[in-house]
Amino acid sequence: MQIRRMTAQDFDAFWPTFQQIVQAQESYAFDPHLDKDDAYRLWCDLPLETWVAEQDGVLLGSYYLKANAAGPGSHVCNCGYMVSESARGKGVARALGEHSQQRARQAGFLAMQFNSVVACNEVAVTLWQKLGFDIIGRVPRAYRHREQGLVDILVMYKWLDTPVAKQAAPALLIGRKNIEAIVSRDRKRRS
Amino acid sequence: MQIRRMTAQDFDAFWPTFQQIVQAQESYAFDPHLDKDDAYRLWCDLPLETWVAEQDGVLLGSYYLKANAAGPGSHVCNCGYMVSESARGKGVARALGEHSQQRARQAGFLAMQFNSVVACNEVAVTLWQKLGFDIIGRVPRAYRHREQGLVDILVMYKWLDTPVAKQAAPALLIGRKNIEAIVSRDRKRRS
Repeated sequence: MQIRRMTAQDFDAFWPTFQQIVQAQESYAFDPHLDKDDAYRLWCDLPLETWVAEQDGVLLGSYYLKANAAGPGSHVCNCGYMVSESARGKGVARALGEHSQQRARQAGFLAMQFNSVVACNEVAVTLWQKLGFDIIGRVPRAYRHREQGLVDILVMYKWLDTPVAKQAAPALLIGRKNIEAIVSRDRKRRS
Repeated sequence: MQIRRMTAQDFDAFWPTFQQIVQAQESYAFDPHLDKDDAYRLWCDLPLETWVAEQDGVLLGSYYLKANAAGPGSHVCNCGYMVSESARGKGVARALGEHSQQRARQAGFLAMQFNSVVACNEVAVTLWQKLGFDIIGRVPRAYRHREQGLVDILVMYKWLDTPVAKQAAPALLIGRKNIEAIVSRDRKRRS
């Protein structure tokens, strides 16, 4: 499996998956009647970057990465993930999730927030928890599920700061206070 | 005090307030360097509707009302409120808050969600609680406060459904169980 940037051509291959997921009304709070151009704008134009997972020329899934808010909230990012129906249960979402966290760190984000994880979407909730996300809010009856009617959504959140250091160089792992002391000492030296 | 729709001319009068609040970086997760055109788009074009509070020709504050999400999340709305510095402490925010809930109900929204109430903004948190909002989430260090550095934000939420009945016809106030019993009885009669 290869994860690479999405092209406009990839979006053609991805469009049936996007439609199927949005029309199912089980996970995304997108307009189920979005046309392809608006979907492209939402998934590819507005975000900071959009990636696809591909294997043997077959598009398995995609995710976007963008800031969750502006100005004083711009250190928190947001992602959306979709996996094609035939590729589910094969670790594609996990691979995209891990890749997106790495990209988010590289882009300078300090945290990642999912604003609307449908509470009864157990596969998603469990996966995000495994990948280090906490449930930090529950919004009652905020999603109109196609089968179940009004259901809760969860706000899930992960601070990305510490894990970067852990993954990049475990031997060099140092605490926040130490980092602050080093930065402070360097500043004093320079002044 | 009169609450009426905002015009393009009102926005000229409102712009210094908008700039002051956004640049203070104590409450809004907007880009503090937004220019006037982008601010107008954000406050007046994108929302469903935008209102001002005015007294003796002086603009005291404003709010916008929009959907918080699309499709299966479109029954939840979101609002933003700003009160000019000289008009604070006079009940303007409360009046705008109550007005916005009424408008939201009239527009068919079932709930109102604030995604980003800065946790240390006690005046705002207390007011929204008085107006019936619950804190349903706390996002750690998601806001870079100008004075206090990284601070938490709160997600606040109010279900608008029941209060409508309360306000519209207090004499007819009946509990949810009674409503369910009546609906069930009516269904049986019809079948």
